[in-house]
Amino acid sequence: MKIVTIGGGSSYTPELIEGFILRKHELPITEIWLVDVEEGREKLEIVGAMAKRMVKAAGLDWKVNLTLDRREALKDADFVTTQFRVGLLDARIRDERIPLSYGFIGQETNGAGGMMKAFRTIPVILSIIEDMKELCPNAWLANFTNPSGIVTEAAIKVGGWKRTVGLCNVPIMMEKFCREAMDYRGHTGELYTKFAGLNHFHWHRVWDKAGNEVTQEIIETLYHPENHMPDKSMRNIRAISFKYDQVKDTGLLPCPYHRYYYLSGDMLAHELEEFAKGETRAEVVKRTEAELFELYKDVKLDYKPEQLTKRGGTYYSDAACELIASIVNNKKTRMVVSTQNNGALSDLPYDCIVEVSAEITSHGPEPIHWGAFPSSTRGMVQSMKAMEEVVIDAAVSGDYAKALQAFTINPLVQAGTKAKEMLDVMLVANKDYLPQFKSVIADLEAKGVTYVKP
Amino acid sequence: MKIVTIGGGSSYTPELIEGFILRKHELPITEIWLVDVEEGREKLEIVGAMAKRMVKAAGLDWKVNLTLDRREALKDADFVTTQFRVGLLDARIRDERIPLSYGFIGQETNGAGGMMKAFRTIPVILSIIEDMKELCPNAWLANFTNPSGIVTEAAIKVGGWKRTVGLCNVPIMMEKFCREAMDYRGHTGELYTKFAGLNHFHWHRVWDKAGNEVTQEIIETLYHPENHMPDKSMRNIRAISFKYDQVKDTGLLPCPYHRYYYLSGDMLAHELEEFAKGETRAEVVKRTEAELFELYKDVKLDYKPEQLTKRGGTYYSDAACELIASIVNNKKTRMVVSTQNNGALSDLPYDCIVEVSAEITSHGPEPIHWGAFPSSTRGMVQSMKAMEEVVIDAAVSGDYAKALQAFTINPLVQAGTKAKEMLDVMLVANKDYLPQFKSVIADLEAKGVTYVKP
Amino acid sequence: MKIVTIGGGSSYTPELIEGFILRKHELPITEIWLVDVEEGREKLEIVGAMAKRMVKAAGLDWKVNLTLDRREALKDADFVTTQFRVGLLDARIRDERIPLSYGFIGQETNGAGGMMKAFRTIPVILSIIEDMKELCPNAWLANFTNPSGIVTEAAIKVGGWKRTVGLCNVPIMMEKFCREAMDYRGHTGELYTKFAGLNHFHWHRVWDKAGNEVTQEIIETLYHPENHMPDKSMRNIRAISFKYDQVKDTGLLPCPYHRYYYLSGDMLAHELEEFAKGETRAEVVKRTEAELFELYKDVKLDYKPEQLTKRGGTYYSDAACELIASIVNNKKTRMVVSTQNNGALSDLPYDCIVEVSAEITSHGPEPIHWGAFPSSTRGMVQSMKAMEEVVIDAAVSGDYAKALQAFTINPLVQAGTKAKEMLDVMLVANKDYLPQFKSVIADLEAKGVTYVKP
Amino acid sequence: MKIVTIGGGSSYTPELIEGFILRKHELPITEIWLVDVEEGREKLEIVGAMAKRMVKAAGLDWKVNLTLDRREALKDADFVTTQFRVGLLDARIRDERIPLSYGFIGQETNGAGGMMKAFRTIPVILSIIEDMKELCPNAWLANFTNPSGIVTEAAIKVGGWKRTVGLCNVPIMMEKFCREAMDYRGHTGELYTKFAGLNHFHWHRVWDKAGNEVTQEIIETLYHPENHMPDKSMRNIRAISFKYDQVKDTGLLPCPYHRYYYLSGDMLAHELEEFAKGETRAEVVKRTEAELFELYKDVKLDYKPEQLTKRGGTYYSDAACELIASIVNNKKTRMVVSTQNNGALSDLPYDCIVEVSAEITSHGPEPIHWGAFPSSTRGMVQSMKAMEEVVIDAAVSGDYAKALQAFTINPLVQAGTKAKEMLDVMLVANKDYLPQFKSVIADLEAKGVTYVKP
Repeated sequence: MKIVTIGGGSSYTPELIEGFILRKHELPITEIWLVDVEEGREKLEIVGAMAKRMVKAAGLDWKVNLTLDRREALKDADFVTTQFRVGLLDARIRDERIPLSYGFIGQETNGAGGMMKAFRTIPVILSIIEDMKELCPNAWLANFTNPSGIVTEAAIKVGGWKRTVGLCNVPIMMEKFCREAMDYRGHTGELYTKFAGLNHFHWHRVWDKAGNEVTQEIIETLYHPENHMPDKSMRNIRAISFKYDQVKDTGLLPCPYHRYYYLSGDMLAHELEEFAKGETRAEVVKRTEAELFELYKDVKLDYKPEQLTKRGGTYYSDAACELIASIVNNKKTRMVVSTQNNGALSDLPYDCIVEVSAEITSHGPEPIHWGAFPSSTRGMVQSMKAMEEVVIDAAVSGDYAKALQAFTINPLVQAGTKAKEMLDVMLVANKDYLPQFKSVIADLEAKGVTYVKP
Repeated sequence: MKIVTIGGGSSYTPELIEGFILRKHELPITEIWLVDVEEGREKLEIVGAMAKRMVKAAGLDWKVNLTLDRREALKDADFVTTQFRVGLLDARIRDERIPLSYGFIGQETNGAGGMMKAFRTIPVILSIIEDMKELCPNAWLANFTNPSGIVTEAAIKVGGWKRTVGLCNVPIMMEKFCREAMDYRGHTGELYTKFAGLNHFHWHRVWDKAGNEVTQEIIETLYHPENHMPDKSMRNIRAISFKYDQVKDTGLLPCPYHRYYYLSGDMLAHELEEFAKGETRAEVVKRTEAELFELYKDVKLDYKPEQLTKRGGTYYSDAACELIASIVNNKKTRMVVSTQNNGALSDLPYDCIVEVSAEITSHGPEPIHWGAFPSSTRGMVQSMKAMEEVVIDAAVSGDYAKALQAFTINPLVQAGTKAKEMLDVMLVANKDYLPQFKSVIADLEAKGVTYVKP
Repeated sequence: MKIVTIGGGSSYTPELIEGFILRKHELPITEIWLVDVEEGREKLEIVGAMAKRMVKAAGLDWKVNLTLDRREALKDADFVTTQFRVGLLDARIRDERIPLSYGFIGQETNGAGGMMKAFRTIPVILSIIEDMKELCPNAWLANFTNPSGIVTEAAIKVGGWKRTVGLCNVPIMMEKFCREAMDYRGHTGELYTKFAGLNHFHWHRVWDKAGNEVTQEIIETLYHPENHMPDKSMRNIRAISFKYDQVKDTGLLPCPYHRYYYLSGDMLAHELEEFAKGETRAEVVKRTEAELFELYKDVKLDYKPEQLTKRGGTYYSDAACELIASIVNNKKTRMVVSTQNNGALSDLPYDCIVEVSAEITSHGPEPIHWGAFPSSTRGMVQSMKAMEEVVIDAAVSGDYAKALQAFTINPLVQAGTKAKEMLDVMLVANKDYLPQFKSVIADLEAKGVTYVKP
Repeated sequence: MKIVTIGGGSSYTPELIEGFILRKHELPITEIWLVDVEEGREKLEIVGAMAKRMVKAAGLDWKVNLTLDRREALKDADFVTTQFRVGLLDARIRDERIPLSYGFIGQETNGAGGMMKAFRTIPVILSIIEDMKELCPNAWLANFTNPSGIVTEAAIKVGGWKRTVGLCNVPIMMEKFCREAMDYRGHTGELYTKFAGLNHFHWHRVWDKAGNEVTQEIIETLYHPENHMPDKSMRNIRAISFKYDQVKDTGLLPCPYHRYYYLSGDMLAHELEEFAKGETRAEVVKRTEAELFELYKDVKLDYKPEQLTKRGGTYYSDAACELIASIVNNKKTRMVVSTQNNGALSDLPYDCIVEVSAEITSHGPEPIHWGAFPSSTRGMVQSMKAMEEVVIDAAVSGDYAKALQAFTINPLVQAGTKAKEMLDVMLVANKDYLPQFKSVIADLEAKGVTYVKP
């Protein structure tokens, strides 16, 4: 079995390798190929050497290959995982800081930053798929490049690669929070969860072993103003508490990214503080990564270091490894993945991509049916999906009007003149990574739009 | 745990008891109540005595109670299973013979006979539910009284008893056929199946362990004119072979009852022969049952006799026991059940009842999402569901026009004057069991409609 | 304005010409082209000469051209009307007599005959559209070749010709019946009608001028067993009375073709009598047509003769003329047409063709919204649409399995061995007109299937 | 014919009376009842006296009755129009100024102000309907109290009054703008428009007489940065120009209220300026109204004065009069009204209320079918509808969590702590008009929430 990881020079790679090693008995791996681009050569070499040490320390004979030649790697691959970042972390810093300089949340997944990231990423994923059609027509594509849901929708609907599954670590963390909340209530025993929504925009319900729905109990435990357990959130999202009444009314547990929508004003205020201090999430991550790569250089390090957990994407690679093991072995593991809707979420287009609890079989994810959302959440998820569709249209066509439309209907951007100015500057700032917008950017520059680091 | 079986005097009861005994380690049973009506008292006593012998022989201390007092039995029940037959097998004989005397297939589930059975059964299931609301408000209702899908829809939508699950043995047999077909092809290993449709009107797809869809391979193995394995069908449906081309075109495996729709002419011809010989399915079953009850009288018999298998409903009770075990233990077993659609089958009304593969959890079935049918099957399943809805409306209201509508749109009845005459005679013939149609039947009798045993 | 009529040699043509003449003030016609094929040359010459006489008698300077060269005619056309019949009336006789010889209703629109007619017609309409794309890319196509709904769906969905409108005379006659029924009740004044369904399979509701719905009142007037006015039906459908209760329950007025579905047994019995006497509708029409053409030969005849009314298609051509006048003048006339659904009938696929009340504007039909059907009619119309889709798939692909599927799911055919035999014979009988089934037919002939005139 | 106007003391009443007078030949009016509450007694007397002068000057014998007794007025009414404003203009001033004091757009229809107006209005409309059920069970209710769409949905879905039609003047003005834009391009002749969406949140398409869609041409004429005609907007919405690219991409013409969504930042900035100057729309309107009432006091004034046009609601009453005339005379006039969706807008719930082009018949509006929206607009309209549903739930239940939910998902409110504080203050400020929130408000006051005029 040949596994190819595109963006192999990522700091996440040791977790991925660890995941494979932990599943050595169920994964008949022979080769692992780590692919990167010239810009990431140094990182690839550092992390690749460490990956080799890890495999060796585990006493395995897997071949770990490092390459800048994507096509060489893809030849006859069985699984391709994607964790690349076009423009590296400097692009993410721009994605977050430019919007904040206009008074908007940047947010690298669903906000202005995420839309720009989609514009950079979609042409690349489509080009990878073109190679795959030729070189490994039966391979599965496990995408965890963000915005994961949007990139997965582009891969499946535009690229036509049905064997794409989008992954994210958030649902795994949500399940852990539920577990902790129930423990805090002294209520042990197995939980059953059901997730539905979009990537970074999903909700979940929970039942205990006796079949009682405990969603409201967990909401109370996590968010009741007087009664809650110590607050929990993900490392990359500040833990401002949700408003208890608002969450209670939905009857659903939100995901941490919902803070951007349910607490927009508070999140913006907080991010503006970080912006002022040069401590946006992207900047913090860049520093953490630099430290990680220093660690990785240590030729004696042959296991995933503790510090990687701080990076934020923990469990991400674990999700990828478990997905692969489930497909290979028809394990029917329950995972939350981005996959084709086909009506599982009745309120969203039949052919769109949703994030939903599914059994992972050897022929792919089989979603557990969800049905309809209540009004309190239905409109939000519908407006997000429509926005995602427009982002993809813009990313594929390079049409300025579509890009502006996306920046108009995205709920994290306040539509109007400032939003348009921000879009223009972001396009110019990303000039090197947006071939599809080439003539649009030339026009903007001709009109005097320039990017100055904010 | 208290389990109540309504229609406890049924010949199926030993299988049910056997099922409970087989699951003794996962079912904390304390009491089993077998309930029947005066008309079935003798059968209840025979089969009840045998049930007691079986439990005793298994070394269990479960109390087996026999009663004609339904309310006494229902008090504090945890699970209620329904396998009653209003009017006993004589009613079924009428359900089959009257239609055949008019040249139509009777068919006790979805044909003219099944509609009449629904008219008799729905008032009873609704009255059981009224008792349950008062006496055991948290109990689950496992229905296997036919027409199982229609009765389940009435229980959930009209009765408002959400904790109803409809059961059927057909999907279990279909999985066995698939297994046998693959074995015949020399292709061993686990299969993954997905079912969707309505009770006695569902289709399924199959994948092998490697993730390849093998539906077409099984279709060819079962139905190819030159190439098929020895034909398989259920005991209660004559094994006329499906037309290979027709099945191939759907890309789905049919259920045995589809013969009534895909081979209507052939099935009718065959049933008319049986009718002439006094060997309709109902008549055969009546004789088999008489033999079974002779066996059951044997005070030494304390296990399910082989002959029960001939009865036709084999695996039915097994399905009920497994359902209960899965709910009690949150086993997440995959079963095919009649449950609320909520959009799992996109082509059918959101709030209707469908038969679909589901995980059985402690809070009930969680359907695996199905989505849309191809045109070849979409219209058929939609027309069946609409017919089911009209049958329920007629059964609840006792409205003659609705009953005639049901007899007009049912695909197994050729609409027109003869269909209307048949309906009129069937109503009169079922006079004792149709309180809701009392004044309608009086009018018919006043007009001279009479029932003469055909 | 150039109008082209394909199938110009039809006996209907005088009505069409009369319709144009009656609208001379709103139709800026310069040329009328009557097109036919070699097989229809004689009829074209007779009826074409008469058309010229009619135009002349009306004192108009329109050029009437007769041609066998379709492409010459289509060049720069503004409107194309289609009334051709592939295989002439002899094909229709086969369409009706072969099914009846198997005990099934033939029915040239939605039954076995209609499906075979679709197989013959769809390749021709698609080839006309290919010519139109090249020769008259802005023309409107008014189709009244039967099965009009199916042919329109093929033209729009397969051919991609959005500017197609399907026409039928049945709704016009239904409005007249409603008017007569209300007059019979002594209830004068304007009526408002709404139609929805499929071609030859639609229902309607009626309101009086004061806004009261009078649908039930008309149902009673037309169908109440004791209370009805003298029965009304269309000339080509025997006037067996609908069952009052059945119609009352739908709350909708049926179309005459619903007799085939609501009174299947009675209609079949009646048609079998006609079959025995050699008086199927097709045979009667053939004789009527022969008489008409004798009349048309009269060089003094320069107006539409009364006898044409007996032909059955009366108002058909009128519908075409009114459609054209409405498009040309943005009249917003309310007409019932076959057009794109787009959700106007919520129970049917979004992209299918439906027959619905619409305002006819200069940019085409704008349907009056209908919404959902009650269960009593929902399933029927859904199953018909699915059947239509399979018929089109079979007609386009020439795939035998799809043809068999259509003959399996069509409610006027009793599925099974006889249905398959009938299909095989019909394919062979239509050999000359089914190029897409060429190899299928060769195989059937090799297996000994032959057509003998029944 | 008896017409009752609730909120009869409104400054709009003279336009309404003028509208009736202009239609005197088609409206068989005998009595007009102007109803108001004690708080509006003085205005009722002034405007009522003027209404009597107008009727007299027109030489009509209609009885104009003024009353504070709603039940007396409703007895046997044929049409009820509602134009009342709970809390008068002072409530509107609070609706606009409180949100602006928190940095949010107030907006009396769809923003924070509009939600609060719905909370005040829905209990009253439901109480009117209770009276109507008893006193005039066949009357039509023409609502133009804002938020008109939300109030209409409450009346139909909660109140169960199917004969409710919601009205608005915006579509009439939009048609005028289209006309002016086409005139500016030198393109005369009839236009055909189709509207769809929600009240104050709809889009439209336009065709010219020849059947060409001219929507993009009008978009260019109105919004192209270099090429547009002088800007047009409604008197109550500042005419900040839409972004041309954004509008072009939708392919639809927006309504003026879309500025709040497409130009949120710009509109907010502008409204904050007005806020600072004490010139919010509500304050301006209050002054205009005071002037109007001074005019109305003039016993010689017996016609609608020019100054009323400045008030902003012009054409509103005209719409009501035309609606009544169309219903009375089955005129089938095309109007844009709020009515039941039933699938006319495929993207919105089947049973919700939408604003859509319809034929007005004697049995009510018959919508012209619309179908699906493109992604660019689909999500927006879906999220607005979900918000409307939550607003109604909150207004009916008086549930604080639902109110907070509405203030969380409304796109004109930035969710979070400030939004919650604003809600709390608005509830307290509206204490006298929110009986359903009585205990919620008491709790808030107990926690120290107070309203201070901003």
